[in-house]
Amino acid sequence: MKLLLVGYGAMNKRVAALAEKGGHSIAGVITPVEEENCPYPLFTSFDDQLPEADVLIDFSHPDLTKRMLQSDLTVPMVIATTGEKDTLVKLMQEKAESAPVFFSANMSYGVHIVTQLLEHLAPLMDAYDIEMIEKHHNKKIDAPSGTLIKLLDAIKDNGRQDAREVYDRSQVTEKRDKKDIGISTIRGGTIVGEHEVLFAGVDEVISIKHTAQSKDIFANGALTVAEKLINKTNGFYTYNNLGV
Amino acid sequence: MKLLLVGYGAMNKRVAALAEKGGHSIAGVITPVEEENCPYPLFTSFDDQLPEADVLIDFSHPDLTKRMLQSDLTVPMVIATTGEKDTLVKLMQEKAESAPVFFSANMSYGVHIVTQLLEHLAPLMDAYDIEMIEKHHNKKIDAPSGTLIKLLDAIKDNGRQDAREVYDRSQVTEKRDKKDIGISTIRGGTIVGEHEVLFAGVDEVISIKHTAQSKDIFANGALTVAEKLINKTNGFYTYNNLGV
Amino acid sequence: MKLLLVGYGAMNKRVAALAEKGGHSIAGVITPVEEENCPYPLFTSFDDQLPEADVLIDFSHPDLTKRMLQSDLTVPMVIATTGEKDTLVKLMQEKAESAPVFFSANMSYGVHIVTQLLEHLAPLMDAYDIEMIEKHHNKKIDAPSGTLIKLLDAIKDNGRQDAREVYDRSQVTEKRDKKDIGISTIRGGTIVGEHEVLFAGVDEVISIKHTAQSKDIFANGALTVAEKLINKTNGFYTYNNLGV
Amino acid sequence: MKLLLVGYGAMNKRVAALAEKGGHSIAGVITPVEEENCPYPLFTSFDDQLPEADVLIDFSHPDLTKRMLQSDLTVPMVIATTGEKDTLVKLMQEKAESAPVFFSANMSYGVHIVTQLLEHLAPLMDAYDIEMIEKHHNKKIDAPSGTLIKLLDAIKDNGRQDAREVYDRSQVTEKRDKKDIGISTIRGGTIVGEHEVLFAGVDEVISIKHTAQSKDIFANGALTVAEKLINKTNGFYTYNNLGV
Repeated sequence: MKLLLVGYGAMNKRVAALAEKGGHSIAGVITPVEEENCPYPLFTSFDDQLPEADVLIDFSHPDLTKRMLQSDLTVPMVIATTGEKDTLVKLMQEKAESAPVFFSANMSYGVHIVTQLLEHLAPLMDAYDIEMIEKHHNKKIDAPSGTLIKLLDAIKDNGRQDAREVYDRSQVTEKRDKKDIGISTIRGGTIVGEHEVLFAGVDEVISIKHTAQSKDIFANGALTVAEKLINKTNGFYTYNNLGV
Repeated sequence: MKLLLVGYGAMNKRVAALAEKGGHSIAGVITPVEEENCPYPLFTSFDDQLPEADVLIDFSHPDLTKRMLQSDLTVPMVIATTGEKDTLVKLMQEKAESAPVFFSANMSYGVHIVTQLLEHLAPLMDAYDIEMIEKHHNKKIDAPSGTLIKLLDAIKDNGRQDAREVYDRSQVTEKRDKKDIGISTIRGGTIVGEHEVLFAGVDEVISIKHTAQSKDIFANGALTVAEKLINKTNGFYTYNNLGV
Repeated sequence: MKLLLVGYGAMNKRVAALAEKGGHSIAGVITPVEEENCPYPLFTSFDDQLPEADVLIDFSHPDLTKRMLQSDLTVPMVIATTGEKDTLVKLMQEKAESAPVFFSANMSYGVHIVTQLLEHLAPLMDAYDIEMIEKHHNKKIDAPSGTLIKLLDAIKDNGRQDAREVYDRSQVTEKRDKKDIGISTIRGGTIVGEHEVLFAGVDEVISIKHTAQSKDIFANGALTVAEKLINKTNGFYTYNNLGV
Repeated sequence: MKLLLVGYGAMNKRVAALAEKGGHSIAGVITPVEEENCPYPLFTSFDDQLPEADVLIDFSHPDLTKRMLQSDLTVPMVIATTGEKDTLVKLMQEKAESAPVFFSANMSYGVHIVTQLLEHLAPLMDAYDIEMIEKHHNKKIDAPSGTLIKLLDAIKDNGRQDAREVYDRSQVTEKRDKKDIGISTIRGGTIVGEHEVLFAGVDEVISIKHTAQSKDIFANGALTVAEKLINKTNGFYTYNNLGV
């Protein structure tokens, strides 16, 4: 594949490296930010004469993505930008009339699958207590992780609307409430990322766990989606209708 | 509920104990085996004048279950007997015209849920290597466990028809084949039962794990099903159509 | 063995049941509390004419234990009572001149072993981040568990004197401090008890985990200690000098 | 530090990269193999006029290590070469009269610590069943891993001399023998390396687990040892007497 990259932050740098390793080529990079040491043709605007490409991968920010969606481009688009979701999805659906457009706020196929499992599972587990645990490296500043919140939302949107997150049990001396969802955040060393959801019932526990070994799961996920998207007709795609 | 028990082995003894603890009563026990110390009215045949009951729980053997299904009984039936599955299911479907009949070869709701997850998941995970691990106590003679085989079948029946089980890697010096499903059997102490399925891909692993703390999950599962079945119309039920 | 039980709460009731199952007998029970349905000879005071016994197991409260240690009894004593530790240990050391006396605040051999491992490990792991996780059933009111605090103390007393416990990371947005020990408390279902300590370093994690399947580990631990203690000479014993 | 590297395979290439990242420099590389693209001064023999250095790191093969130990070099030596252990250790002990010499067959500090824990633990756990589990990526050909065998030896050398490894339980239908040590090998995806030892007893399980996220633990381990070794007097060192 010949790829256009929109944005050239840490994530698209990995996309570029993994794409070349996989035999693909980078036709150009579109970013308003000045870039030194970028080995690919640079463009600052969608009004520029852009090189031909089979597909585009966008890991940038809502402003740039908006401009992309409002441009005349009709190349297949893999969009992983987060923020201003409602606005962007609306623009993507318009663009989907003239190009295949894929969107996911989390490009890891594994995280997508776990999200889907939880959507399926949550309504079946009324009788079980839910606890969530995430582990990351000691440099991570936010807690809990964005992925944990995504998984929590998948649970709450599917039968646990009245759930109450509990972050600290050391300050209360009362029994767990049925509505509680306990959230534990582990930080240490260089742990890349682990998310676990426990369903604890009478005499049994079901655990669903995702372990990431490298942030490359996001870049690789985007490339795998790109390979599928180039064979699709125009339309709006997510992991739920892209097909495996 | 007033319960009839069919069979009075280890499992229905636990059903009786847990039922009484939960405020239910045992109207009688049907078993051809002579029982001393059984505190409930005993019956050896379905031709006997059986006491009235709301529901019946059958943890016995195919011969007794067959006679039950061929009798005139029309009480709701929770059937957990294993063996001669095809014959029994056919008879159950006939009986289902005159009574609500529930069947599962594994009464644990948690194991059922994990089976269902795997059926859903297996076809989506072509790019992942599957490994299965089960742990049980040091007195268990068979390996792998029946539950592991049930889970393996759920995977094979859903897109992995050509899977090849691998039990011992110490005797071969070659790379893992894509078709392999590794099966590891741990035995030690008094571990009640743990089953884990790993989906290992590029830079990520998804794990689905069920941990049992007590064999009561089977007896409790039967009682929970019984409480739902007494409100059902005639028909053949499994965990898939009973509703939560 | 012929056993005297001091105290007849939940724990010594399990000791009695497991002792009889193991072929031992209960010579009598000493408790100031009135007991109905106790099948053993009852005594309310150490001044009573107590039956002969090989060993005594005390799961009671400091008042009763104090009176026992101040009495004339010279039977080997397994003491598991918690509270007023300094006073009791002083009295035990006096009693140890005329009887073998064993004390542990946690009768589980496994928990003892894990404590010992942590004492050994903590001073060797300066470069690693420590995180602790415990899981218990949804009825447990206190958090974190007493056993976690015991394990934490073992770490702090061995090279981490300046450790700072962190119970909730959702309220701060800063990197983990090297001195932090994160403590996570999971509550759900009927989980009996699980304690895990993580040492997370650069590109590697070491985990030490103890899983209890039943509260019987405490009663069984007391019986195993009793069997060893009856062959010991007078003196004060703990798990550290009893021998395996 | 100024480093000499002996051998320039995958491992010392990582040592070089991590050393430079850490502010150290590579004074030269000694290898009989012809190397293109090596950015450091190359030497093929210990008879060459080697550059000055603070310490040397040897990840090579026994032949080259032997020649190094028989040369006149007296720079501190960190030796990680495996094979011909007895011969090499004898030569190291001779060299230790004129230089600080460190040896470990596994340079990961974490693996060393786990080995030490098992040496400490094994003799205390007579009543427990031991099971070992290792997980690696789907390209690994040998099974079980060399590290598992190292851990197994630590257990057998400390009170389990009569242990019998069991690799496959699916072919036998008998209870676990007390002498068994079950060994399970998991292969899948890109798992870097995980080793777990279970001690399963009555109603409790203790688990010791080491998880590697990157092969860099070996290169980093060598560099950390080097930093300590340069301050040591002549002598033979291992992880057991180097000090933390």
